[in-house]
Amino acid sequence: MNAEIYAARRGLARRKMAEQRLGGLLVTLDANRYYLSGFELHDPQANESSGCLLLLPGGEDWLCTDPRYEEAARRLWPENQILIYSGTSQASGTINRLLRSRVKGALGVEGRCISMAFCRDVSSGLRVRSADGLVESLRMIKDEAEIALMRASAALNHKLMEWVPGVLRPGHSEKQLAWEVEQFFRNHGAEDVSFKSIVAVGANAALPHALPGEDKVREGACVLLDCGCRLNDYCSDQSRTFWVGEKAPDYFRRALDQVQEAQRLAIRSIRPGVRCNEAYAVAHDYFDRLGVAQHFNHGLGHGIGLQTHEPPSLNPKNETILRPGMITSVEPGLYYPEWGGVRWEHMALVTEDGCELL
Amino acid sequence: MNAEIYAARRGLARRKMAEQRLGGLLVTLDANRYYLSGFELHDPQANESSGCLLLLPGGEDWLCTDPRYEEAARRLWPENQILIYSGTSQASGTINRLLRSRVKGALGVEGRCISMAFCRDVSSGLRVRSADGLVESLRMIKDEAEIALMRASAALNHKLMEWVPGVLRPGHSEKQLAWEVEQFFRNHGAEDVSFKSIVAVGANAALPHALPGEDKVREGACVLLDCGCRLNDYCSDQSRTFWVGEKAPDYFRRALDQVQEAQRLAIRSIRPGVRCNEAYAVAHDYFDRLGVAQHFNHGLGHGIGLQTHEPPSLNPKNETILRPGMITSVEPGLYYPEWGGVRWEHMALVTEDGCELL
Repeated sequence: MNAEIYAARRGLARRKMAEQRLGGLLVTLDANRYYLSGFELHDPQANESSGCLLLLPGGEDWLCTDPRYEEAARRLWPENQILIYSGTSQASGTINRLLRSRVKGALGVEGRCISMAFCRDVSSGLRVRSADGLVESLRMIKDEAEIALMRASAALNHKLMEWVPGVLRPGHSEKQLAWEVEQFFRNHGAEDVSFKSIVAVGANAALPHALPGEDKVREGACVLLDCGCRLNDYCSDQSRTFWVGEKAPDYFRRALDQVQEAQRLAIRSIRPGVRCNEAYAVAHDYFDRLGVAQHFNHGLGHGIGLQTHEPPSLNPKNETILRPGMITSVEPGLYYPEWGGVRWEHMALVTEDGCELL
Repeated sequence: MNAEIYAARRGLARRKMAEQRLGGLLVTLDANRYYLSGFELHDPQANESSGCLLLLPGGEDWLCTDPRYEEAARRLWPENQILIYSGTSQASGTINRLLRSRVKGALGVEGRCISMAFCRDVSSGLRVRSADGLVESLRMIKDEAEIALMRASAALNHKLMEWVPGVLRPGHSEKQLAWEVEQFFRNHGAEDVSFKSIVAVGANAALPHALPGEDKVREGACVLLDCGCRLNDYCSDQSRTFWVGEKAPDYFRRALDQVQEAQRLAIRSIRPGVRCNEAYAVAHDYFDRLGVAQHFNHGLGHGIGLQTHEPPSLNPKNETILRPGMITSVEPGLYYPEWGGVRWEHMALVTEDGCELL
């Protein structure tokens, strides 16, 4: 992305700030910070930030970081709008002085993505208002450049899924397979997996959050694979469920047929104007008519982009209206603790008159 | 770790809660949660939690999570002390009801590791007090089992460092080397790298936060490698700086000698009773006497364990007193934008009468 794209995004964010009458917006979620500046997509660890961004109504935006990132900041930000604090412990005091001198009116903060202590210290003496979702509402609609990157990320995921059946040999453990999946992605240019791969053999497939373990692929059991890559910053996410062995039993083929049909119906329903919970209901109601809805115990899908999980979520409560440029996973599943389960997942881009599978 | 170890750790945390007169402690940092319960060392992404832990004075502790993790929770927690909330959006309301019914007096929260919005919603109607560092102060002192795991993690890092010189061939890019380092760790049993490896050729070595790029290893330039693995949950972290080519120039050998001597002096100073900033000062003052202290622009080291960066930090301001069982990195460095720099890092375990390199 070039500097103009980030500046244009900050311009859109500024419009939302004006609507919400904010005198400043402190961006602390790593993906939001990166989306608006190109600076550091990742924080080093859960409780360690690589910096934050201050958006001001006048357009003189500040990048705040510690000395480790000073050089990276200088490469993409005007020097007189970079604030360097020394060490995390002094971040809040230093940034507070900047905020007090620049922010007129209420400061918007990302309440779900800023720590309580940092928020308290950094905003001392200021009026604070929650601006949760402000940047995410922009990120939800992907532009052409982002769509191209999402296509590339999804394409590598398809390539992986074509390659997988050849390595589903009995004797391989879930853990080994997960590592082979990761190596495939990385050897084909991905910088990372987009989340820890799920490789679940047999009954393990019934756990929606199955960590790959020592259980081995075996004849006469299913293997559920749910994995994605991060390629040029953008995430992919796909699931398939395979049967290993001669002939899949009826219960597996039935579940697979039902899940694939639910996915087909849901995808057919996805178009601009439809609400997220309506798309969910299409899959759920289909399962309900078959009497298996109690085996579908998670949402239909989630938005995906710079993060694996981002808005909009296709869950039963989300009233967000689908619009062109949104990208969500569509991943119905049916789970049976006795033998495992089936999940089938693609990524769908909402277009002008429907959706397109990436 | 077996269940007794986690229970014993919660017992120690409860003592600290009593000292601070807390009627409950809500543990939200992933590493702290895991340390006290064995439940999920990692959260899925920056703004998505896999659950939190409520410690109560009477010992009836609660594990709160969403349906994805229900099975994992049941495997290690009494069923009648598991709280399942449906989806992140409803977590705070559901947990708030639990807190209101169980917490008598002030609720301790990890203010630096809980989001502002979640803290506000989850603690509605309760008195809140900051309990930052309560669990970290326990984690700072490693027990015998943890020390054994840290030894194993460090041993794999040593193995890697012995293997590295053989692959430092001119023509290899920083990125390729970083990936080879990661594969080495993973192929030798590590579940992950403990942080994104730094591989910096030539002048890039002067950036303390150098992301591996397309620059290639070449004759007549240095390569700074700073990397670690996560093996059985515990992190390692080591740095070395190599010269590629026939004979290292004087400026490189001088910097290497100075850095190694600073490390040797610092390690000699580390023992129970010494303050963290005193250990830092030993390295800094040595550089100062040589007139190169301005080229040493970061702390001397950091605590390491379940997280790569955890207390205690060996920085100029930290007055924490070193005690047996603490493990920190010792990593002085000298940086010269013209040609790069040198960093040299080992992990030191504070013993009864000094320290031992892992």
